[in-house]
Amino acid sequence: MPHQSRSDETRARILAAAVECFTRSGYDATGVAEICAHAGVSKGAFYHHFPSKQTAFLALMDLWLNDVDEPLRAARVLGETVPQQLVGLARIVEPVFAVAQGQVPMFLEFWRQAAKEPEVWQATIEPYRRFRAGFAELVKAGVADGTLHPVDPDLAALTIVSLGVGLVVQGALDPTGEDWGQAAAQALKLLLEGLAT
Amino acid sequence: MPHQSRSDETRARILAAAVECFTRSGYDATGVAEICAHAGVSKGAFYHHFPSKQTAFLALMDLWLNDVDEPLRAARVLGETVPQQLVGLARIVEPVFAVAQGQVPMFLEFWRQAAKEPEVWQATIEPYRRFRAGFAELVKAGVADGTLHPVDPDLAALTIVSLGVGLVVQGALDPTGEDWGQAAAQALKLLLEGLAT
Repeated sequence: MPHQSRSDETRARILAAAVECFTRSGYDATGVAEICAHAGVSKGAFYHHFPSKQTAFLALMDLWLNDVDEPLRAARVLGETVPQQLVGLARIVEPVFAVAQGQVPMFLEFWRQAAKEPEVWQATIEPYRRFRAGFAELVKAGVADGTLHPVDPDLAALTIVSLGVGLVVQGALDPTGEDWGQAAAQALKLLLEGLAT
Repeated sequence: MPHQSRSDETRARILAAAVECFTRSGYDATGVAEICAHAGVSKGAFYHHFPSKQTAFLALMDLWLNDVDEPLRAARVLGETVPQQLVGLARIVEPVFAVAQGQVPMFLEFWRQAAKEPEVWQATIEPYRRFRAGFAELVKAGVADGTLHPVDPDLAALTIVSLGVGLVVQGALDPTGEDWGQAAAQALKLLLEGLAT
């Protein structure tokens, strides 16, 4: 179906142009017209794929989160024990840190705006909650098979996600201060092993 | 010296007005004129205290960081062992989370802009580096007295600060999703005890 694939290609071109415009000018200051000009598509083509700028942003967010979501769902193949799976996961998402650096500001800008509109807020927060739930499942499995202490899975998941968010944000603000992807794997190991004797 | 104290009072009034304007309109969109109008002071009075909007922002940042910096420097009184001191610290900074929520966006906005100007960037990053160094000192003391594992102090400090940054940012984006201050104390305990058996 050549028509279908051309449509997919147009959608991908719009999303690539949207990333470029949002990263350079910020979410707020970017208009649909600017995205269309960059993608070389008509406004009609844009609105065929995305009812609004917001929808295009949410589609972008889905794409990014997939980079972490997919390995998270397939964590079982990354190691025999849950600690090994978690460390394997940290290694896999290392490249995400480099990609995220330029995109964190517009992400935060979008999220702040979303907070003012309940429906957009729901769509924005949903993948984040799913994400935390995915880690909680993994922790639950580790508690069940005895490779993790009998911790509260939700608290442990929140701690893991907080570490990740903190590292991504610091990486965006101070890109050259640290090898942030590598630091993520090492920090996760510290969390697994604990600091106190 | 009544003159000195009136000058201090003006400075405090300018800073309070600046927080209000920055929080409402963002750092970028706020002008010195707007801050002066809110503070009820002349532009002359503003520039007597702060050579620029940037300088006023850096003074605000110093004030906030003091809320964490002071207990960090006085951590020794918070408990006998370093783990106890760290948990005590997390409890003390709990209220910071509530205050930070509204202020995180303008903070990130300022930091992004600072990245473009080397001198401002130095002034912005310096308290953050001092902050990480303070935690590294605390960890070093814990490793020395045997209450902490022989971990890399810089890595452990980065992990603690990342947890804090991640929780503050999530708290700003999803204020009602969690009791973020309480979560901070619990997450720190998990980090001290470790997840893996």
